[in-house]
Amino acid sequence: MARREMRWFGWGDPAHVSHGLPDGALELLRARVGLADVPQPPFPASAIRLPAAVEFDIPGVELRTDHEARLLRSAGKSYPDLVRMRAGALETAPDAVAVPLLADDVRAVLGAGVAVVPFGGGTSVVGGVEALRGEHPAVVSLDLGRLDRLLSVDARSRVAVFEPGIQLPAAEAALNAQGFTLGHFPQSYEYATVGGCVATRSAGQASTGYGRIDAMVVGLDVATPAGDVHLPAVPASAAGPDLRELFVGSEGVLGVLTRVALRVRPLPAERRYEGFMFGSFDQGCNALRALEQEGAAPHVARLSDESETEVTFAMAGREGVAADLAARYLRARRVERGCLAIVGWEGTLDGVEDARAASVSVLRRHGAVGLGRSPGRAWSRGRFDGPYLRDDLLERGVMAETLETATTWSNLGVLYGAVGDALRRHAPVVMCHVSHLYETGASLYFTFIARQREGEEIQQWREAKAAACDAIVAAGGTITHHHAVGRDHAPWLHHETSQPGVAALRAVKAELDPEGIMNPGKLLATGGTVP
Amino acid sequence: MARREMRWFGWGDPAHVSHGLPDGALELLRARVGLADVPQPPFPASAIRLPAAVEFDIPGVELRTDHEARLLRSAGKSYPDLVRMRAGALETAPDAVAVPLLADDVRAVLGAGVAVVPFGGGTSVVGGVEALRGEHPAVVSLDLGRLDRLLSVDARSRVAVFEPGIQLPAAEAALNAQGFTLGHFPQSYEYATVGGCVATRSAGQASTGYGRIDAMVVGLDVATPAGDVHLPAVPASAAGPDLRELFVGSEGVLGVLTRVALRVRPLPAERRYEGFMFGSFDQGCNALRALEQEGAAPHVARLSDESETEVTFAMAGREGVAADLAARYLRARRVERGCLAIVGWEGTLDGVEDARAASVSVLRRHGAVGLGRSPGRAWSRGRFDGPYLRDDLLERGVMAETLETATTWSNLGVLYGAVGDALRRHAPVVMCHVSHLYETGASLYFTFIARQREGEEIQQWREAKAAACDAIVAAGGTITHHHAVGRDHAPWLHHETSQPGVAALRAVKAELDPEGIMNPGKLLATGGTVP
Repeated sequence: MARREMRWFGWGDPAHVSHGLPDGALELLRARVGLADVPQPPFPASAIRLPAAVEFDIPGVELRTDHEARLLRSAGKSYPDLVRMRAGALETAPDAVAVPLLADDVRAVLGAGVAVVPFGGGTSVVGGVEALRGEHPAVVSLDLGRLDRLLSVDARSRVAVFEPGIQLPAAEAALNAQGFTLGHFPQSYEYATVGGCVATRSAGQASTGYGRIDAMVVGLDVATPAGDVHLPAVPASAAGPDLRELFVGSEGVLGVLTRVALRVRPLPAERRYEGFMFGSFDQGCNALRALEQEGAAPHVARLSDESETEVTFAMAGREGVAADLAARYLRARRVERGCLAIVGWEGTLDGVEDARAASVSVLRRHGAVGLGRSPGRAWSRGRFDGPYLRDDLLERGVMAETLETATTWSNLGVLYGAVGDALRRHAPVVMCHVSHLYETGASLYFTFIARQREGEEIQQWREAKAAACDAIVAAGGTITHHHAVGRDHAPWLHHETSQPGVAALRAVKAELDPEGIMNPGKLLATGGTVP
Repeated sequence: MARREMRWFGWGDPAHVSHGLPDGALELLRARVGLADVPQPPFPASAIRLPAAVEFDIPGVELRTDHEARLLRSAGKSYPDLVRMRAGALETAPDAVAVPLLADDVRAVLGAGVAVVPFGGGTSVVGGVEALRGEHPAVVSLDLGRLDRLLSVDARSRVAVFEPGIQLPAAEAALNAQGFTLGHFPQSYEYATVGGCVATRSAGQASTGYGRIDAMVVGLDVATPAGDVHLPAVPASAAGPDLRELFVGSEGVLGVLTRVALRVRPLPAERRYEGFMFGSFDQGCNALRALEQEGAAPHVARLSDESETEVTFAMAGREGVAADLAARYLRARRVERGCLAIVGWEGTLDGVEDARAASVSVLRRHGAVGLGRSPGRAWSRGRFDGPYLRDDLLERGVMAETLETATTWSNLGVLYGAVGDALRRHAPVVMCHVSHLYETGASLYFTFIARQREGEEIQQWREAKAAACDAIVAAGGTITHHHAVGRDHAPWLHHETSQPGVAALRAVKAELDPEGIMNPGKLLATGGTVP
């Protein structure tokens, strides 16, 4: 499958045609946030001036230094990335882009004496692929897009071995052809790579059922500046600390994943997603906890708070059926607001039937009212559309940003309150959903929306982001549940790992990457040294 | 609950009275292995000369320097440990034993300028607690037995926080009183501590159902010479490499666990263990794989090979019913030998009923014949007795040693063959069982039995052990599935982690333990530098 490139100024397919925001959503935004009267188009790509490129060679490896290649590898898709890109005000660009065809080429790039930024799908929303050079004379973007094969499938052991640069749709297609699925569907699914998911400890929309990517990794190969690490595919081991877990989530600062062996599952014959309505977020959280702890958890379980539910129905437009059902629910209960849950099961026909019956019994016991398959279909249809909407909003002068965390069930309400309060001081619309369930807790995914402060867009974002991160840390949540650390969360890492924890990771980096060429400025950049 | 001490020369309760080996077992051993005619009692404890103790003080911490304390903390319970102990030929002993009451006392011990060997239950079978002093003037055994509290249970989140030194029976009793179980039952259950299990990446007999200890750890606190690390209890995170997984399995070489937060489960109302018979080990392995991969896995699943099955029935003695049934099975099938599986379910009454039905359907489809609950009861009654038998055998001049590994399902037969072949060159009786199931593979647990070579007992063991470890590494298994690395597996670690992997762990150690005081000679001792 050919590599899919995103449009340079924002998310997704360059051929994507925005249908604009639905009337209901425009009305809500106008009333509560404000919109620019005239859409603001991005600065033209060809007119963006990139920093002058430092020239260098890497014997045996082809380097691209053209404007387009450098522009497309200069950043990921975080809010600040997009603001800068749309304004034509890039901070950095790689001096060259290397596109290795073999693991040996990767090793050659690591030996070139320049900073190296591993680049998978380029979907980072935390500044994970910005082309920072650190103390080095030049920086190369190591584009892994042509190391894109499914190398083997061990059907008996349910283990598939991939090269890192294969994008998730291609990985799925190749597995599906052999009767398997990875079951990994982050919102970045259309572009993210298998290696990128492993390097960022990714979770997908169906991870309640299939497990996070870290639960799938059974073996991996890493090329580090100090040499290759091969960790064989074993189901479990007591041979000291688990080094897999050191490279999973290492975000390219220790080396480059050259192969990953992942646990796969049989391709489901049936996928069924339905909507359920709860009277309150708290009631819904209790129901999800019961699902997980009673062994009746579905593959997909998402619960929107009252605010997100309201916006979801305002956005629904064509999904009149579900909105009507929800309205009827609210009237019948004589409440103003409610909370929408999307619950989904995947598997054999019988398996889905049985699993659904078990889930629905728990949901009903906790006060859920079924809305049928229509909201499930609507969610499924739009499950990867969020980032396109962000672009539409940016065009109308609106900041829309998301962040996520996780905590134990007993602390979930405290964390939800603290982060919401912090964000509402910076944005008139703050909404949240639970996106992943665990026996001991769950994740919270926040979206906040505000009118941009013209000329201060980055500063405005920085203030809201810092407020949320401070609140997360103070309330005992993890600084990130699945977006990773990158550049944006690095100042908070030491709160989560303690100072000696960051120091231990820095020691590993000094050992494996003694010159500090690997992805400068990410993950370990400032954590632990910030006041 | 008072701390339980083991008898100094071997395993378990000092009040334990051996009933000797059953006649069937004696007959089998005499025929195939050979036995000493006269039982060889251990050297008397009081007559064992310990190395002279180096004197030192640690302000505020009570140190025991008496003969008994030093003797009991000089080693674990590995085969070489027991051989040396029974012969009164100890290599090492701690100069003193510190018994901290508070985490602050632990910090004081780490600051004393002497080597520190953290000591939990002292059950290591891989030399993990031998009182080696490395380059240091003295060595203290840090006995964690009085840091033994269950600190809190968060019933809503199913998280319990323990001090490290609580022994598993006490931890179970305290949890059971609140309606929960840890579900962790290694063969060392009667003595092992929660902290020791976490530090050695332990697995228990019911870990197919409850998960290995590493799957239970949600948070932990570690006192390291470079400072404290607090990793909060979060269900999942993408905040870089998972540092929990760096301390889980760190075997005391990075610091001392001072608190661990573990996921717990509801106390089961019902536990049901049954026996099943297969025509061959291969057939049984296929059945276990199907159980796990079809979502019908029990909590306990153990499959003995033909050799272990034969010995099990010879040992059974009073379990005539099961042996009779098995004999009838073999006659009916007109085969000489068969393989016994023990399968167990835990949960609510209804839950066990349903889970059993699902498992039995899969087992029957794969050719299993049920032997009923009698073999399950026999297994359950004797589930922690293996180490006592080892002592009985030692007394009769017989080496009985176990080792374990794991690999993918498709490699299981290769690994089984390779390790068995290697061991049979050193021992006339070699037997094996599958003890833990995973989606991608399973563990293999080998027992080998040979007449001791008098005067060369350790050398004899070393030859067999090296042959098995070399075979494991060559066949792609992990060097240890749940016994940990300690001193005995350290020379093979670099095969599993690659040289840069060991170097990365050494870098972490240098950062957190710059003087190298923590548990010298273990885990990272020789791995990576052996020819």
